[in-house]
Amino acid sequence: MTMITALDTFDVRFPTSRELDGSDAMNPDPDYSAAYVIMRTDQPGLAGYSLAFTIGRGNDVQKAAIDALAHHILGLDLREVAGDLGGFSKRLINDSQLRWLGPEKGVMHMAIGAVINAAWDLAARLAGKPLWRFIADMTPEELVATIDFRYLTDALTPEEALTMLHAAAPGKPKRIEQLLAEGYPAYTTSPGWLGYSDEKMQRLAREAIADGFRTIKLKVGMNVEDDIRRCRLARETVGPNIAIAVDANQRWNVPDAIAWLRHLVDVKLEWVEEPTSPDDILGHAAIRRAVAPVPISTGEHTHNRVMFKQLFQAGAVDLVQIDAARVGGVNENLAILLMAAKYGVRVYPHAGGVGLCELVQHLAMADFIAITGKKEDRAIEFVDHLHQHFVEPVVIRNGRYIAPQTPGFSAQMHADTLTQYRYPDGPVWMEPVDIVNAH
Amino acid sequence: MTMITALDTFDVRFPTSRELDGSDAMNPDPDYSAAYVIMRTDQPGLAGYSLAFTIGRGNDVQKAAIDALAHHILGLDLREVAGDLGGFSKRLINDSQLRWLGPEKGVMHMAIGAVINAAWDLAARLAGKPLWRFIADMTPEELVATIDFRYLTDALTPEEALTMLHAAAPGKPKRIEQLLAEGYPAYTTSPGWLGYSDEKMQRLAREAIADGFRTIKLKVGMNVEDDIRRCRLARETVGPNIAIAVDANQRWNVPDAIAWLRHLVDVKLEWVEEPTSPDDILGHAAIRRAVAPVPISTGEHTHNRVMFKQLFQAGAVDLVQIDAARVGGVNENLAILLMAAKYGVRVYPHAGGVGLCELVQHLAMADFIAITGKKEDRAIEFVDHLHQHFVEPVVIRNGRYIAPQTPGFSAQMHADTLTQYRYPDGPVWMEPVDIVNAH
Repeated sequence: MTMITALDTFDVRFPTSRELDGSDAMNPDPDYSAAYVIMRTDQPGLAGYSLAFTIGRGNDVQKAAIDALAHHILGLDLREVAGDLGGFSKRLINDSQLRWLGPEKGVMHMAIGAVINAAWDLAARLAGKPLWRFIADMTPEELVATIDFRYLTDALTPEEALTMLHAAAPGKPKRIEQLLAEGYPAYTTSPGWLGYSDEKMQRLAREAIADGFRTIKLKVGMNVEDDIRRCRLARETVGPNIAIAVDANQRWNVPDAIAWLRHLVDVKLEWVEEPTSPDDILGHAAIRRAVAPVPISTGEHTHNRVMFKQLFQAGAVDLVQIDAARVGGVNENLAILLMAAKYGVRVYPHAGGVGLCELVQHLAMADFIAITGKKEDRAIEFVDHLHQHFVEPVVIRNGRYIAPQTPGFSAQMHADTLTQYRYPDGPVWMEPVDIVNAH
Repeated sequence: MTMITALDTFDVRFPTSRELDGSDAMNPDPDYSAAYVIMRTDQPGLAGYSLAFTIGRGNDVQKAAIDALAHHILGLDLREVAGDLGGFSKRLINDSQLRWLGPEKGVMHMAIGAVINAAWDLAARLAGKPLWRFIADMTPEELVATIDFRYLTDALTPEEALTMLHAAAPGKPKRIEQLLAEGYPAYTTSPGWLGYSDEKMQRLAREAIADGFRTIKLKVGMNVEDDIRRCRLARETVGPNIAIAVDANQRWNVPDAIAWLRHLVDVKLEWVEEPTSPDDILGHAAIRRAVAPVPISTGEHTHNRVMFKQLFQAGAVDLVQIDAARVGGVNENLAILLMAAKYGVRVYPHAGGVGLCELVQHLAMADFIAITGKKEDRAIEFVDHLHQHFVEPVVIRNGRYIAPQTPGFSAQMHADTLTQYRYPDGPVWMEPVDIVNAH
């Protein structure tokens, strides 16, 4: 028997606010951070790695929430964790006392998601497969057994999910070959941060196209005149055949979103992301109706499957983002992907931050193989920073994510990063600011 | 100048799971707990008291989240806190880095709510008024200035709120007299915990009526046959003129709620509380349509004003609960009360737990005086335990809350309670269990 022996956590922060990478209308000065988790076993060399992503202050609270889950895990037989990913997830999510702190939202749900994702990493490593392949190789019955259908059955039943997965199963071997040969489309937000000058935006947009990207995204929402100018400039720069999305990061009230977006209709946007509160399902539906045919989306802050369910039921969105580290782990994201497939809503996974690209690529690839069979009408977000801190960083070639081949969920960080960027006492945080910028 | 000098926090837990007080279909063994806050000043004897309520595990995480807010508060001039309750609330809620941990939901939002409520307590103490009276005495303009209308303007604008408050203003002096003379209706959940025998439920129901309560509430959702039997027994016991509500504590999926509730139609329920996930606005609307005229409600876990807004917009509920310690403090609850008034939805505040009765009575009384002018068609929940730990416990007479007269928000605990029940090292938690039960 192999036993879970420790749940080690780390408050790791990167001083990204010292430049303006990651600046948007709601997040002017993020310090991209991770509440990082190592789920250790007594088998030499075997551990599960995962993280919850935050943007600085509060990363210590996120770490404390993960620590509060240790009693659920320490001493467990590995078979109760990696061998029963559905049962393991339900035990954490349905802890009746911890549930009060959500339920299924915010700090505690992200903590549970991080621990569940560490269990999936461990399971995939045990199987010797990258996570996307580990999911793709599950039978429909095995995959459905990982999902908690509580609160979902008015939109998706286990039987419907099984039917969808069985229908997709015969094509899996061919799609695995396709994925390995072609990669999965990426899109890039790198040109579009609000802190960048017009010239820097245009230069980065041209570079993105030269690098093979077919979709770019700009941040909007601070000033309507600026947005009109920047979006038109971007359209002139990239031409009519590159898709341009915009992201307002929850900046607007519903009536303001409608008024603002009417100014941007002529830019021919691929989608408008997070026009208002991520909680406002009816608000997204109202915006979508008012500015049609401008496509509306949200999802990176959508906190659980019940909220995604309603976005689909209300016809509130044309497409959605999913985030690997916001909801209750792989299990809940599989439920969301299945609902999106049933409702015919395309998924453009949210990434960037710290490790979000590394994690979410596996979910998109598993969706292509095992659920929807589609990848060329969608794309995974890509932002090119902080990948050097990961043992198996994402590989982007010609604007596409190359499928990872090494076992696991790709979230393991270098030991040196944990030492250097530990908050508040790692060397990076102890140095004077002008030295830090040289890193 | 008076300065904020400390934000002291305490992990206080009561071993309520050792008896079955508080047991329901989702929370079989709660240990009612408080992440308790003292906002200290350098003026002798002046401090603000507040708490976030949890049910045991995770209370340490809740405390850590409150601690993470200290840097926003320490060293502030009292005028920036008690003298600008709107600005103070917005600064906390819009901290761009902490916002990522919600936004406006879960552990971090409850922490912010606790700190904001401590500021209101401080402000009311400074004014020498109980909180309900402090709010009632605000001008419409002062009250509206405390509210963040972000994400609300499609349902309620500041101008509409002002109009409502001005319309209510002339009746305020008369209603203050009425409240002081009559108290505010209470209802009781004491007979209805799932762990109680039929005989105990009947005995407590009879006692409740003898004590003057006109509404009782039973927990349901574990077993449909039990629920039918208990509800019919309760109806036989109390007769046709006492209102009976039931509370499923989020137990059901939408189709299950509909099927289950059809068995209870003949009991003539006053309302059905939390039939499904608190996030499922469209689900509540679907249940309400399917089981009409059975009244549907939710709210104690509704995490912010955007969710309440949608409950009202979707016609998802006949009435709502509010909770004093779930959302972002008094400010956000005032926004919710104003929206409920506009949409004509009655509010039955959630209480029980630790200190929730003490806190929420002020909000209901302020609503009566300053907003709706109504109290006899609604009631505040009352559960008779743990009040002895508060310096100014609620006073219930003839089934009614008596308006508090002492300054503040009534959440101050006895110093001895903080010592005895401190977790994990207070005497109550260090003693063998059989001794604890004697407390």
